[in-house]
Amino acid sequence: MRNPVGAAVLRPEKTASITEAVLAELAEVGYARLSMESVARRAGVGKSALYRRWPGKVAMATAAIGEWAVPAAPRPDTGSLRGDIRVMVEGMVAWLSHPLISRILPDMLAEAAREPAVAAAFRDNVTTPRRDAVRGVLERAAARGELGVSVDLALDLLGAPVYWRMSVRQEDHGPEYLDELVEALVRAICT
Amino acid sequence: MRNPVGAAVLRPEKTASITEAVLAELAEVGYARLSMESVARRAGVGKSALYRRWPGKVAMATAAIGEWAVPAAPRPDTGSLRGDIRVMVEGMVAWLSHPLISRILPDMLAEAAREPAVAAAFRDNVTTPRRDAVRGVLERAAARGELGVSVDLALDLLGAPVYWRMSVRQEDHGPEYLDELVEALVRAICT
Repeated sequence: MRNPVGAAVLRPEKTASITEAVLAELAEVGYARLSMESVARRAGVGKSALYRRWPGKVAMATAAIGEWAVPAAPRPDTGSLRGDIRVMVEGMVAWLSHPLISRILPDMLAEAAREPAVAAAFRDNVTTPRRDAVRGVLERAAARGELGVSVDLALDLLGAPVYWRMSVRQEDHGPEYLDELVEALVRAICT
Repeated sequence: MRNPVGAAVLRPEKTASITEAVLAELAEVGYARLSMESVARRAGVGKSALYRRWPGKVAMATAAIGEWAVPAAPRPDTGSLRGDIRVMVEGMVAWLSHPLISRILPDMLAEAAREPAVAAAFRDNVTTPRRDAVRGVLERAAARGELGVSVDLALDLLGAPVYWRMSVRQEDHGPEYLDELVEALVRAICT
């Protein structure tokens, strides 16, 4: 897409360093106390650099999480759904083990429960693109005749248990727990 | 247990009305802005009535959620694990559909992610007793030879998908979705 005539050209490396500042602020002070000012100060840019990129705080915060969460979505292609399930479960563990995301995610979900605008932006910028990335893995499995449930349910079952264990229950999961979980998911999801 | 000599006798109906006030405050202003004063005012009691029951805010808030969440835990005994799974999934849906809990839970989990003391109290007063209630259902199934996974994993698999769907993703679940989920859980959990 070419830049519209007269529009400012946005330098990607500047966007990346602002994104980093947004995530650091989200982890440190939380969404409620984050402000355009505090992000601009931390990133060492003017507020106009933020407003050229995002219309406001909701868009900025959720886009920053997405910039980082969507490329991190696991997209395995091991040749079998069983193999892909293990990689996807491990990808979820890795994502939730990240020290920033483990602080940012519960905070953003609490805001989303209070504020429909936050919920909608979080869905558009984080959940839906992440889910679309993983959906491709399941659609390939369905084409091979290996998927025994709807893609929608499979996506829930692949994300939910690790999230519940790590983020909601804040409970340990050893390698044996993950082995048993993968086997149970194989029985639940595969034909 | 008899009351220790000289200890104040706590009237249960007063405890119940304070608990209601705590939950209403949690849903309305959130844990961070809840204070002993605001709860006392809402319940129409003195602060000493709160301090006679709980040492402080963390204990009061998590005990109030537990008073209400623990008796609501599903304890089905349909005679088969398959039947019990459906009742437990429906119990989870009912719990998360409650207008107060759907606002309180994400907020408390965000606090728990920030504050280890909140996490510990939430676990002691809410998660662990709820889990212990459901554990009995699974132990009966294990005694009948119907449980194909560890009780620990079964508990996670019974709670996680509905929580993920309703609270994290804020997504609809029709009766067909729940039917498909129950069937997948039966394959995952039962022998």
